[in-house]
Amino acid sequence: MSTYQLIELIAVISGGTYGVLLARRHEMDLVGVSSLAFMVAFGGGTLRDLFLDRYPLFWIRHDHYAVIVFGLAVVTSLIPKIPDAAEKYLSVPDALGLGMFSVAGALAGQESETSLFIAAVLGVVTGTFGGVIADVVCNRVPSLFRHAPLYATCSFAGCWLLFGLQWLQIPDLYAIPVTLAFIVTMRLVALRWNIRLPQYSPSDESSSE
Amino acid sequence: MSTYQLIELIAVISGGTYGVLLARRHEMDLVGVSSLAFMVAFGGGTLRDLFLDRYPLFWIRHDHYAVIVFGLAVVTSLIPKIPDAAEKYLSVPDALGLGMFSVAGALAGQESETSLFIAAVLGVVTGTFGGVIADVVCNRVPSLFRHAPLYATCSFAGCWLLFGLQWLQIPDLYAIPVTLAFIVTMRLVALRWNIRLPQYSPSDESSSE
Amino acid sequence: MSTYQLIELIAVISGGTYGVLLARRHEMDLVGVSSLAFMVAFGGGTLRDLFLDRYPLFWIRHDHYAVIVFGLAVVTSLIPKIPDAAEKYLSVPDALGLGMFSVAGALAGQESETSLFIAAVLGVVTGTFGGVIADVVCNRVPSLFRHAPLYATCSFAGCWLLFGLQWLQIPDLYAIPVTLAFIVTMRLVALRWNIRLPQYSPSDESSSE
Repeated sequence: MSTYQLIELIAVISGGTYGVLLARRHEMDLVGVSSLAFMVAFGGGTLRDLFLDRYPLFWIRHDHYAVIVFGLAVVTSLIPKIPDAAEKYLSVPDALGLGMFSVAGALAGQESETSLFIAAVLGVVTGTFGGVIADVVCNRVPSLFRHAPLYATCSFAGCWLLFGLQWLQIPDLYAIPVTLAFIVTMRLVALRWNIRLPQYSPSDESSSE
Repeated sequence: MSTYQLIELIAVISGGTYGVLLARRHEMDLVGVSSLAFMVAFGGGTLRDLFLDRYPLFWIRHDHYAVIVFGLAVVTSLIPKIPDAAEKYLSVPDALGLGMFSVAGALAGQESETSLFIAAVLGVVTGTFGGVIADVVCNRVPSLFRHAPLYATCSFAGCWLLFGLQWLQIPDLYAIPVTLAFIVTMRLVALRWNIRLPQYSPSDESSSE
Repeated sequence: MSTYQLIELIAVISGGTYGVLLARRHEMDLVGVSSLAFMVAFGGGTLRDLFLDRYPLFWIRHDHYAVIVFGLAVVTSLIPKIPDAAEKYLSVPDALGLGMFSVAGALAGQESETSLFIAAVLGVVTGTFGGVIADVVCNRVPSLFRHAPLYATCSFAGCWLLFGLQWLQIPDLYAIPVTLAFIVTMRLVALRWNIRLPQYSPSDESSSE
């Protein structure tokens, strides 16, 4: 198994685990848990593949991913209660998943010869929209869009770093790990010191400036 | 008209009717009623076709389906008030629709040479995600994911029954009706005796074990 | 730049602006603002392109659209407070966008040789579903489906007007502007005099007739 595949596997498992935790918080049953795990793990990459006409979809081509995520949902269902602390330990694999999926999305865009800006957008979609879909299904305004520590921003910045390194003729063999490390570090730093983008005041409703 | 087409038609009409009832409960107008009817009737199959790169989409190929569902929305709009009892009589056509769409999804997966597990997932998506999409649009956590009588589980079990019968060399001519009957019966039994999957306690929030 | 491209650009900008306003009302940050602007501007056309297997998607082919919408999100983010009145001035470009996207959707359906009814449905989806997706993501039942001034209805009627003009052998050079003018006028009239479709009483819950 190549390093790339190992990281992709970590990304899928981390996404699946996030989905399981989200579903349990909403008191779902095994169907809900598996569905949300699939959505978080596969949602972003599915949008990228649909947008770029890449078939078979990555989770249909690598069909063991779906088995692993389903197994994860079944096995965790045997644990009667997941301690609150579990989520804290997710931030590292989650950041790895963000980095990995963002890079994979940006590279897929380049392969399909989109403009760099579109490739960066696809990187962000691949890296973050699994969680967005899961949030929408759980009837929450996606946390990605709210006033929260940088997430999509790390993905977007990382994509441009990758394009910059490529422009400097640095081979992907080095450019990709550097980008990955950058996204993971930026995300963990943002989490640790609670770095956020400014929030808008609503355009109406509120009154004082 | 073949038996297959008759059952598919029943599935589409049953889905459309479910959408109409859902939209009226949310006090929508004819646009909302038609849109929800389309979403329930065509949502799951559309996802399957998009995931598998099957074009034209089934409701574009069989273009009378859309006319029928729209006609259903218009005709029911002339009925000022639909009695509560109407929904009760929907459980049989709804179970038929579940069975029919599940089988169609699983067969489509096999045609595209996915793994059996992926084909079963596609069966469940085709059979159930029309309702999921409609629930999400109506701003409800999908009933599919909640603690409710078995639904997706019937579809998933039915797909594996179908694969088992095929593995035993039983021709589809017999295997498909048996699977259909199995899914419909399992669904109606689950409804009648309120059989559910266990529900998870939330991972945080609650305290006592 | 042709007239067609000018109107499409207006449609994209108007959609993006609507998304920005919606996001700010929900107190999102720049990520949320850009994402919603993309969804409103590109959502309907993306569904149309996916449904019809048209690649590259229109916002990947015309890649400056995404840059313009992102620029719009960034520039408006420098404005600390958008006055309530801004939204009022949106109704004309929004109606233009509705007309333009509806016509583009219907023509795309015809190009793919769908039935006229399906082409009209695609016109409505292209014209209106960007807003539907944004509403769903913001956790609101789509305003399109509620008891509100005619919107999808203008799109649907306009598509049939276009088909009627074509049936009368009127060349698209005239038929398209007439249809556009019809949709825009019908929408503004519906807004001005608050013309709506009748709303359904719920099928259950309420009691008196």
